[in-house]
Amino acid sequence: MEKETIRERLALLRQGMSREGLDAWLAADADCHGSEYVGEHFKTRTFLSGFTGSAGTLLVLPDSAGLWTDSRYWIQAEQELADTGIDLFRSGEKTTPTVQKYLAEKLPEGGRLGFDGRTFSGAYCQTLRRQWKKGELRSDLDLPDAFWTDRPALPDAPAFLLEERYAGQSAAEKLAKLRQELAKRDAAVFLLTALDDLAWLFNLRGGDVAYNPVLLAYAAVTPERALLFTDESKLSDGLRASLAGLGTEIRPYDGVYDFCRETEPGCRVMLDTRYVNQSLCSILEDRGAERIDIPNPTALWKSIKNDTEQANMRLAHEKDGAALTKWLYQVKRDIGRVPMTECSVGDLVDELRRQQGALGPSFATIAGYGPHGAIVHYEATAETDVPLQPEGLLLLDSGGQYLEGTTDVTRTVALGPVTEEQKRHVTLVLRGMLALADAVFPAGTRAEQLEAVARLPLWGAGLDYGHGTGHGVGCFLCVHEGPVNLRQRPLYGWDGVLRPGMILSDEPGYYAAGSHGVRQENLLLVCRAEREGYLRFEHLTLAPFDRDAIDPALLGEEGRRRLDAYHRRVYQTLAPRLTEEEAHWLAEVTKPLETAGGLYHEKKDFVSAPYEPRMQTI
Amino acid sequence: MEKETIRERLALLRQGMSREGLDAWLAADADCHGSEYVGEHFKTRTFLSGFTGSAGTLLVLPDSAGLWTDSRYWIQAEQELADTGIDLFRSGEKTTPTVQKYLAEKLPEGGRLGFDGRTFSGAYCQTLRRQWKKGELRSDLDLPDAFWTDRPALPDAPAFLLEERYAGQSAAEKLAKLRQELAKRDAAVFLLTALDDLAWLFNLRGGDVAYNPVLLAYAAVTPERALLFTDESKLSDGLRASLAGLGTEIRPYDGVYDFCRETEPGCRVMLDTRYVNQSLCSILEDRGAERIDIPNPTALWKSIKNDTEQANMRLAHEKDGAALTKWLYQVKRDIGRVPMTECSVGDLVDELRRQQGALGPSFATIAGYGPHGAIVHYEATAETDVPLQPEGLLLLDSGGQYLEGTTDVTRTVALGPVTEEQKRHVTLVLRGMLALADAVFPAGTRAEQLEAVARLPLWGAGLDYGHGTGHGVGCFLCVHEGPVNLRQRPLYGWDGVLRPGMILSDEPGYYAAGSHGVRQENLLLVCRAEREGYLRFEHLTLAPFDRDAIDPALLGEEGRRRLDAYHRRVYQTLAPRLTEEEAHWLAEVTKPLETAGGLYHEKKDFVSAPYEPRMQTI
Repeated sequence: MEKETIRERLALLRQGMSREGLDAWLAADADCHGSEYVGEHFKTRTFLSGFTGSAGTLLVLPDSAGLWTDSRYWIQAEQELADTGIDLFRSGEKTTPTVQKYLAEKLPEGGRLGFDGRTFSGAYCQTLRRQWKKGELRSDLDLPDAFWTDRPALPDAPAFLLEERYAGQSAAEKLAKLRQELAKRDAAVFLLTALDDLAWLFNLRGGDVAYNPVLLAYAAVTPERALLFTDESKLSDGLRASLAGLGTEIRPYDGVYDFCRETEPGCRVMLDTRYVNQSLCSILEDRGAERIDIPNPTALWKSIKNDTEQANMRLAHEKDGAALTKWLYQVKRDIGRVPMTECSVGDLVDELRRQQGALGPSFATIAGYGPHGAIVHYEATAETDVPLQPEGLLLLDSGGQYLEGTTDVTRTVALGPVTEEQKRHVTLVLRGMLALADAVFPAGTRAEQLEAVARLPLWGAGLDYGHGTGHGVGCFLCVHEGPVNLRQRPLYGWDGVLRPGMILSDEPGYYAAGSHGVRQENLLLVCRAEREGYLRFEHLTLAPFDRDAIDPALLGEEGRRRLDAYHRRVYQTLAPRLTEEEAHWLAEVTKPLETAGGLYHEKKDFVSAPYEPRMQTI
Repeated sequence: MEKETIRERLALLRQGMSREGLDAWLAADADCHGSEYVGEHFKTRTFLSGFTGSAGTLLVLPDSAGLWTDSRYWIQAEQELADTGIDLFRSGEKTTPTVQKYLAEKLPEGGRLGFDGRTFSGAYCQTLRRQWKKGELRSDLDLPDAFWTDRPALPDAPAFLLEERYAGQSAAEKLAKLRQELAKRDAAVFLLTALDDLAWLFNLRGGDVAYNPVLLAYAAVTPERALLFTDESKLSDGLRASLAGLGTEIRPYDGVYDFCRETEPGCRVMLDTRYVNQSLCSILEDRGAERIDIPNPTALWKSIKNDTEQANMRLAHEKDGAALTKWLYQVKRDIGRVPMTECSVGDLVDELRRQQGALGPSFATIAGYGPHGAIVHYEATAETDVPLQPEGLLLLDSGGQYLEGTTDVTRTVALGPVTEEQKRHVTLVLRGMLALADAVFPAGTRAEQLEAVARLPLWGAGLDYGHGTGHGVGCFLCVHEGPVNLRQRPLYGWDGVLRPGMILSDEPGYYAAGSHGVRQENLLLVCRAEREGYLRFEHLTLAPFDRDAIDPALLGEEGRRRLDAYHRRVYQTLAPRLTEEEAHWLAEVTKPLETAGGLYHEKKDFVSAPYEPRMQTI
């Protein structure tokens, strides 16, 4: 973007600030629902600053401006912010003040901060108020809209009903359960704005948000009524009839604000202010409504997949495993002979998934070769793309959206010779990943009690990774789904207790900056173990791990046993979905490491790989 | 005790209650400091009820009485309470009301509950008030004292100075650090009543409490003054001079109550109401003092052993390991030939420790044979004692108090043939215990993140144990020392972060009720690992694990490697402290399981054990 354009936009914003008597303006790329992915219509911060990273907050003052973003984006932000007059604030560095602290320092006593209250959560603003007591918040303005002449329209993708053979439970049953919760808490209204919870509750899906099959909508449920606030053009006649059958009243998308303005003083409203935006929260406050601020109960219900969802997730993962196995086969077969780049192999896996029935990827595919693999949230673009060579490690983190479910899988692949150090890193990561997946534990065990199991082999070598070990996953919904998470410190909104039917990713990694990156990721389903009162995990993900990148000795006796058992299941399940050549290849690469005679230590030249002969038959 | 005596005592108590207008009386066996072990003087509940268990609360109403105790004591309590008119309330059972709930049900609105406020903590009474709002607390009475004619006197053991070559830091330095903390919190007084923290702060030790080398005392530290409230007869002239040199003023033991009565309104008093008793708390409240209720900072400082303490703890454990090894040798050698009982082998280990320099045991030795091993807090008495046979498992949990430090170790020993199931249990427990001890982890890791490592092998077999995995340990202080603990849920008062110098026990177990019990326990010291920023554990405890009770195959490749490495160290360290015969035996029983040629699977007849020939030389 032209730097001149940015400076002009900031000037126009400052005119607006001056007109409204504001001392500062806050902007983020955020929709009205606290979504992870947001459409172009909502990218106000990008519009104002030119910074295109997925995370960052812009603060504009009359004679200065700052952008706060984390270490993933510092290099990019430096380039994009140069000559715009916007200073970069490196979030996470000790010397960097928080936005709140900066406001307190820079703004006069009684200073006024403006922002679009629809794009910040009630909880965020509460913290802001607590930490910056001397100022005043003004959340009812959308200043940039006045001069954002070519602002993209709101998305208008059609919504559709998720049939019960996929959802496993009718929306009527879900609503009934929710109304029990309302009664239990003596609440008059449940205000739901989180798009995935809303999609789950009404068994609706849509196409308004990239990667996440949800529709832009709000909902309000009372003991008698269910209101869905959404653009009616999204709804087919059939869908409208179906929602009417459920007793759902359809209102315009923005009608939720009027709905809140009509609440009576003292009306008990159940809502999750981590997701409900500040505009709605402040309307309720003004009306004197009593807020019951709790995690959406729908979030926990949604996280416990029912039998139908579990069966469908298994099916989705068979399709997905077939796609990924075909990809692995092609890449391993063709590397060094057919030109490939990060982008081309990324496109290939997306295409192979589509052939298996995926409606699209569940997030932007990460194909990171060599040093790019060490950038945790790398996304290859035309500018960064590199050709793949027949050597070193390629990290592929990708997933698909199927009607049956959502997938998310990472494999680290040797494209040719790899160093001993690389093998060591791959093996330690895999060892921890398999150990966690193999854990049996009593009902009541919390995720953070088990998280270290995935890290211990790395820790033993003085290595670690800077991200959590896993996240919850939706069923044909968001690939990052709360409240489930597998972290060293639990996130707010969940007691951490693993319950049968929950799905989480198991994805330790290791990142050698400037050299290579390793991550191995399977999705796990929490199941009952044979012993009453105990639980275990089931690998949902089915795809081979590249043994060319593994040192069997370092995997340990148990690690080898675990990998062999997993590979046996991968072969048995996927072979019927593959061509004869692919199946033959899969049989070879899933042969047990642990044999009766001892360790399998095939010393092979990479070029004369076992599947080499069969290549000539293609 | 005669049941008639109990009924008479209750009648006298009720007369007192009626005289004071009380609707209920609460009693426990507790001293004025919240100590784990209390002297006979403080056993009011035992005096009133005849129930002698270490945990239990007595509530006496005008026409009924109840005793609350946990499952460890139900059988004992049934017997001891029979015909006394006291009902047993089984704490922990779902249908059992809490004392608070029971009070709320049984007592009239505005009912009055009396108790000796010196024997309940401020925090307990706060909870009581919160949960039983309709009643009134009267905490300034000691009704039983009036008719407890032969009440044992307060202990009067002499106190002594712990020299700096043991303490590693002068009391002056500790007081200076504490005063910095006072300044930081803008506090005028630190009121310290926890006996071990007090002993640590002043480098004092005593003999007033069984197993714990502490003296009965309170302390108050202000920016200028240090007051020690204790019976002056405990202090030798030298000790008095030394305390005076430190600027410490000596006051009578009960003078602390007057001291608190002299605080000014608004005086900021730092104290830990989990330990400070209700009498002191209510005096401060009445005076209008401002309480800063935080965990005693001394507790965390004390938990981080300095270099001198660490070196001394190592030395204590060498002596202790020699004692336990001699015990193991004698028991294994003589079983089936020389009569032994639980009590006799318990006495033997205590005596062997004394010979190594121990001043006494650090807790009541647990020697549990066969089914007794499954009773977690078993203590053999003349009534329960059984002869040991040359078969099955003996669990010995014991420890010593040395000037250099405190020890606590458990070994599960095969006295002869053991079943495959017993071996399986012993091996799974040992495997988890060794795996945890071998963990390397980044600084900042919390204990509850690692706890499951000790449980995973058992969990994998659908087995578990009902207690925590470990506790903190003092340095020539209490064997159970806060705030360090290794549990599934962290206890209040500690952030859970493992810091170099902390000591904790690692003691998983398995208890097959009516059959056998298994526990394997070593003390671990948190150390820095080679890799900067990482920590690891060092085994402080040195004593062999009985390989006759272990299935090497089930221990796993890593478990065998860990055991062999540990045994190598045990032998090298302890051999110089043993007789030739003992050292020879130790060499045999610490031979590696994992040999170059494969697994060590010696199939031997138990009677022709490898140390048999050398027996004839003794």
